[in-house]
Amino acid sequence: MAVIGGGQLARMMQEEASALGVHLRALVEAPDGSAAQVMPDAPVGRADDAGAVRDLLQPKQGEQLQDLADAAVLTFEHEHQDHALLQQLAAQGVSVQPSAQALLYARDKLEMRRAMTRLELPQPAWSPVSQPAEVLEFALQHGWPVVLKTPQGGYDGHGVLLVNDAAELENGEAAKWFKALADGAGVGGGGSLGGAQVSCLLVEQAVNFTRELAALVARNPSGQVEAWPVVETVQVEGMCDTVLAPAPGLKPATAALAQQVAKRVASELEVTGVLAVEMFVVEGDGGDQLYINELAMRPHNSGHWSQDGALTSQFEQHLRAVLDWPLGSAQLVAPTVMVNVIGWRQETDALLPDPSSRLAQALQLAPQAKIHLYGKQARRGRKLGHVNLSLAEGQDPAQAVEIGRQVAHVLTCPQL
Amino acid sequence: MAVIGGGQLARMMQEEASALGVHLRALVEAPDGSAAQVMPDAPVGRADDAGAVRDLLQPKQGEQLQDLADAAVLTFEHEHQDHALLQQLAAQGVSVQPSAQALLYARDKLEMRRAMTRLELPQPAWSPVSQPAEVLEFALQHGWPVVLKTPQGGYDGHGVLLVNDAAELENGEAAKWFKALADGAGVGGGGSLGGAQVSCLLVEQAVNFTRELAALVARNPSGQVEAWPVVETVQVEGMCDTVLAPAPGLKPATAALAQQVAKRVASELEVTGVLAVEMFVVEGDGGDQLYINELAMRPHNSGHWSQDGALTSQFEQHLRAVLDWPLGSAQLVAPTVMVNVIGWRQETDALLPDPSSRLAQALQLAPQAKIHLYGKQARRGRKLGHVNLSLAEGQDPAQAVEIGRQVAHVLTCPQL
Repeated sequence: MAVIGGGQLARMMQEEASALGVHLRALVEAPDGSAAQVMPDAPVGRADDAGAVRDLLQPKQGEQLQDLADAAVLTFEHEHQDHALLQQLAAQGVSVQPSAQALLYARDKLEMRRAMTRLELPQPAWSPVSQPAEVLEFALQHGWPVVLKTPQGGYDGHGVLLVNDAAELENGEAAKWFKALADGAGVGGGGSLGGAQVSCLLVEQAVNFTRELAALVARNPSGQVEAWPVVETVQVEGMCDTVLAPAPGLKPATAALAQQVAKRVASELEVTGVLAVEMFVVEGDGGDQLYINELAMRPHNSGHWSQDGALTSQFEQHLRAVLDWPLGSAQLVAPTVMVNVIGWRQETDALLPDPSSRLAQALQLAPQAKIHLYGKQARRGRKLGHVNLSLAEGQDPAQAVEIGRQVAHVLTCPQL
Repeated sequence: MAVIGGGQLARMMQEEASALGVHLRALVEAPDGSAAQVMPDAPVGRADDAGAVRDLLQPKQGEQLQDLADAAVLTFEHEHQDHALLQQLAAQGVSVQPSAQALLYARDKLEMRRAMTRLELPQPAWSPVSQPAEVLEFALQHGWPVVLKTPQGGYDGHGVLLVNDAAELENGEAAKWFKALADGAGVGGGGSLGGAQVSCLLVEQAVNFTRELAALVARNPSGQVEAWPVVETVQVEGMCDTVLAPAPGLKPATAALAQQVAKRVASELEVTGVLAVEMFVVEGDGGDQLYINELAMRPHNSGHWSQDGALTSQFEQHLRAVLDWPLGSAQLVAPTVMVNVIGWRQETDALLPDPSSRLAQALQLAPQAKIHLYGKQARRGRKLGHVNLSLAEGQDPAQAVEIGRQVAHVLTCPQL
């Protein structure tokens, strides 16, 4: 089977593909990238190069495959794919998982909001906007602050803007976004994905949440769905930093509802593979309220804990799901915390240490830590690895998080 | 770092090397073998080809390594290595782990028996023999039956012969062994490793054991040793079939003693990496008696359960140990059983199914099963994979073994 993308998600899929005896071929951005380092079959090419994607699906010399349809299961490590190309491939008999149609809901936040409204699933108030006046009107109705988003191209906090009041709307970053929109330029910044060319923006009510949750499920084309325990996620500067699995002290009814919501999204949108539904929760004595924030249709940072804390990891499950194989049990093995290993933002890239060179020191700190490194060059704000720690009986998750942070510190701190 | 061997043990090392961000290079027997399928850096060559082994230790173009000593950590997936070559490499600064000297005790059963006697560790009575008369004399002293072994080259039951009485000694397979010995021919059969050219045989008292155990430990060159829980192993036709971790109902004092024995072997013989000490145990109300049977210095079939049942798997631990990194916790996550997936002995190779083609059916059987396949072509009596099953609270290990057997059956049975 084939995957588009050569980052850490493809790398971690490969670890599970090896265990299952599945041959995985990846279309990668660079011959020495994270996935290519560990995959013998990793041609270099762009996700939007139709020729490269078609080549990816051809049987290699010596493989006993009749045609595309025999061989080709195609999946992705990110949602930013060429919609038309995927539709063509599917029409030619390639098993594209998730489908182009499903991916649209993860790639376009306006499409996603419309779908959630149609399904009557819980979410913040929202509206498409193309002028500041429309934001003002929205805020009059729903209150300040509001969140402005580019419908496409955002990730890790890029393309998301908190707007606190009318003054910020007129004079701050938001004003620049609307100017860029009017000029037909890219909006929202966003590193390698670049600013998105969009025809309107999305405004949402800013939810005054007590914490953030993620409900992960996997679904195969036959319709089987498995849900992992609902986790708490902690973001720092818009990027996932820490995950607590399961979400400590979450009311069972709220956890069950969050799982139901995620299962319903998966089934109604016909998602295949892993689906992460990021949610806000407002917890109170009178009951909790959930709000869907974003969808991701691939293994997701909020599920990395499952490698060491669940019977079936999200990477194994994703492979099983897209191959339309029976899914594995997503049962908890032990409560687990995950802490990301991220390049220090304060330093220039040149001063950042290679986490590999610190591995022995980091392992010394915590014999129970499971350290996963991605083989990526250290850059400011870049995800370089993660640490999973399963909790001992009665251990406070906060204590495990503290150990995880110490391990991450050793791996990344410019001066030790 | 580099490993000699391209079978499933190297393949499973690679899965953990990927997670740790370690670059693993393997010297493999064939370009499409078990490990080569999942390793981008797997040159083909023979373990006894000095040039091929030296090439393995050279930095690749683009690697920033000064010389051999900077780069070279060398380990193995089997003990049958060229002693003199390893000694030369070590003298040139290559970190050979385990050392040529330590490997000798795993490769030569006479050397091992002498060392265990010197260390006063528990083992069956034994003696080197070169004529049937010496076996008779040994049996007079220690009783029938006895076990005749080739000191070198045996594995999976090859090179081991139970001799029940004097008649069998004179007329059976044993007589052929002694004739081959006298003729200077290979003794003991044994598939790909061939019969061994030996100057004498080894006779041992046949222990009337209640069951077989394995004590696995890992040791790094700095001397840190970690022990996994002692397991029960079940052999079928001389080959490991099932492992129960930990050994059910084993007296805590016996388990502790078995761990101590294994730690002592590791330390006294200066073993590095994973060491498996296979033992017989005779259990009785008056107390248990242990007898060391064999040593293996590499990840071992009796430790495959640790991939899904221990905090640190034997494959991760082996890498950490040979790199002289701090070892991980070998603590049990959950009691686990392992069942091997072995090609059916009754059929010709051509009739055996490819286990991959049965994977979906097998996964359907048991959502909690962790199936590991090696990407190997099915052959009679060949290990093709294994199934790990962690026990639910209060679950009978025998029930999990039964599920494991059903999974293995689906993967391998010629007619379903």
